[in-house]
Amino acid sequence: MTCEIVSIGTELLMGQIVDTDARYLSERMGELGIRVLRRQTVGDNRERMAEAIKLAISRADLVITSGGLGPTQDDITKQVVAECLELTMVRDEKTVVQLQRHAEARGVKLSEFSLQQADFPEGATILLNRRGTAPGFYVRQENTSVAVLPGPPRELTDMFEWQLEPILRKRCGDVLASRYLKVFGMGEPQVQDALIELFHQNNPTLALYCGMGEVTIRLTASAEIGLSAEKLLAPLEKEIRRRLGHKIYATGRDASLSKVVFELLVKKGKMLALAESCTGGMLASMMVENQGASKALLEGLVTYNDKAKMRVLGVRSDTLQNYGAVSAQCASEMAAGALINSGADYALSITGIAGPDGGTEAKPVGTIFVGLADAMGVSVQRFQFQAGDRTWIRMLCAQNALNMLRLRLLGIA
Amino acid sequence: MTCEIVSIGTELLMGQIVDTDARYLSERMGELGIRVLRRQTVGDNRERMAEAIKLAISRADLVITSGGLGPTQDDITKQVVAECLELTMVRDEKTVVQLQRHAEARGVKLSEFSLQQADFPEGATILLNRRGTAPGFYVRQENTSVAVLPGPPRELTDMFEWQLEPILRKRCGDVLASRYLKVFGMGEPQVQDALIELFHQNNPTLALYCGMGEVTIRLTASAEIGLSAEKLLAPLEKEIRRRLGHKIYATGRDASLSKVVFELLVKKGKMLALAESCTGGMLASMMVENQGASKALLEGLVTYNDKAKMRVLGVRSDTLQNYGAVSAQCASEMAAGALINSGADYALSITGIAGPDGGTEAKPVGTIFVGLADAMGVSVQRFQFQAGDRTWIRMLCAQNALNMLRLRLLGIA
Repeated sequence: MTCEIVSIGTELLMGQIVDTDARYLSERMGELGIRVLRRQTVGDNRERMAEAIKLAISRADLVITSGGLGPTQDDITKQVVAECLELTMVRDEKTVVQLQRHAEARGVKLSEFSLQQADFPEGATILLNRRGTAPGFYVRQENTSVAVLPGPPRELTDMFEWQLEPILRKRCGDVLASRYLKVFGMGEPQVQDALIELFHQNNPTLALYCGMGEVTIRLTASAEIGLSAEKLLAPLEKEIRRRLGHKIYATGRDASLSKVVFELLVKKGKMLALAESCTGGMLASMMVENQGASKALLEGLVTYNDKAKMRVLGVRSDTLQNYGAVSAQCASEMAAGALINSGADYALSITGIAGPDGGTEAKPVGTIFVGLADAMGVSVQRFQFQAGDRTWIRMLCAQNALNMLRLRLLGIA
Repeated sequence: MTCEIVSIGTELLMGQIVDTDARYLSERMGELGIRVLRRQTVGDNRERMAEAIKLAISRADLVITSGGLGPTQDDITKQVVAECLELTMVRDEKTVVQLQRHAEARGVKLSEFSLQQADFPEGATILLNRRGTAPGFYVRQENTSVAVLPGPPRELTDMFEWQLEPILRKRCGDVLASRYLKVFGMGEPQVQDALIELFHQNNPTLALYCGMGEVTIRLTASAEIGLSAEKLLAPLEKEIRRRLGHKIYATGRDASLSKVVFELLVKKGKMLALAESCTGGMLASMMVENQGASKALLEGLVTYNDKAKMRVLGVRSDTLQNYGAVSAQCASEMAAGALINSGADYALSITGIAGPDGGTEAKPVGTIFVGLADAMGVSVQRFQFQAGDRTWIRMLCAQNALNMLRLRLLGIA
């Protein structure tokens, strides 16, 4: 089955927002084994919208639109799709009641424009919206199907997963299963090389997604109804795990290094303290992304300034003078200071040159020292990242520090 | 002049990356007064690529492609564009020399595929790439022009600004000038309401861009050559400033609250200390985004855990017991503790409920207290954000704290 995505909204063409919906839908289609061959973007203009939708209908088995579903005059996607499919609009009384209830709760009167949110092409399956007011719909015809979804990403993703995905899964006939493996410490080309001939097989299939300093491997298997696609994934996952070992840090689309580390710490009942220089709180902030972070994060000390390194962490002024703030010695004292002062079980320290200036021949931009202290002592690793974006380097620092702690918690390093 | 953007790359259709290039180009076209009416996305497939490019050429004055310019077999954009324009490819000897030099420096041999990076359609203007190896090009024909740019955002943005933008500016005839005003503390609808009738004028024009908790206003004026478009902007800017006052925190596309605060602190020779609970280092991290952050940021203390609030900041256990960690009293003691311990001139503290759980009736998710301490004492503000994404709430906390300090530094609050 082929799919074409039509993104609708003048704000897209003005560059006011990035089209994350199109990315999300593309990724989810891949998971369902549906091939996205083209995408189009048009503004809230009746003529160009109709042109794009007609073109998409003429060449794809499934057309998904996003945007233009709200209660304002600009929101004409439903009407245009109905015209393209030569269907008349019918008002859905159940939706009218819901809209009225919603309006009453907010103490506003329903306008005629708002009521149009209850109009759908005849024969359409209404897709409910529990994160907003505008429902979407799905129409199946002989040669094509069209799904109409709202633009706001929160609404689109929820409607897709809750309402549209089950319909598409049924339609695909085959039962599909996907699994995601998250990899840290290897680039995309390295992962590709390590798995090279596994990409040639048809079922299950593999795809790689590049994230912030990490790679996600998607395994997708299809099986006829009654058979288990999940079962087909197991041998492939085992083989990938054999090749990549502990570079795979988690299973699941939304896994993150900070979550894995947080859960390991909680499981072991251990507390972490952080001492950050160039990352400046980014690592602490990643840990606090996890709800209930205080169960594992005792404290974080941002000591970008040398004075703070001395006052807060007890780094010796000799060390700063003789070796500089970006040195293994300083990283070591930072980690030790954070551990001892706080009484935590583990302490991570980061000091480095995030750039764009401040590099020397011996320590170019991208030179980073990460310290890890626990009851057994302090170990320091030096990393050399490519000079580039300051935020990017800082992010790599934080991720690599988390990975060092992960390996320690697993007893690997 | 109208423009159509064609984004090329199978990785886009697989959802492996978000199309930030298309957003960037759309925004820049708006600035040049060029209207983007449509965008298309296709994979690295000769047939569909040609179909898309031909369609774009048939209906737009300017077609910009991004992607498919590299040295691999997949990278066929240049050939396809040449075919669509019925032009033959010519090898550019200057580019050959550059490629050879680049290959020698890296100790590799130039493959025939790599050499194809030196082929361009006859009559094309070569667009140099100083952030990668693959040059782009620009071809002008009677009814249409086509610009071919590389996919990697770093390369595309630099090539656009350095090589293509001057060509387009010349071609637009009119001289265009843009200015960006950054607004904090008002939502997009509020800004729109405040400026409503100013949107109706044709020259200069206004556009709004929504950012992370802030709004950017773009003013664009055009003038015939020899006249000053800049001059046309001044009265409009003055009127906007009159209406929005100190809600406008900076001028310039890339301005940020943390940069403004950083610069104000440096200018006044003042040092800042931070005490963060729910933001967990995010605010410190924003300050460290500024190169040379140690000139203004003395230290940051991440005290998500109650024990850390007591040990590191000296918050009294009575306070935590009687009022809770999310209280004006706690925020006040956090700020005072950070100020006194560090010896900084200003200290900001943040404590709140970022969710998704942990809210109560009196203090629902999104309840935040921000403390600001200086030699004059401590003041605390309570904010109530809508429950939602945890990261989003934390980001709003950090931005609002920065804004409190900005207003204090300006003597406004």
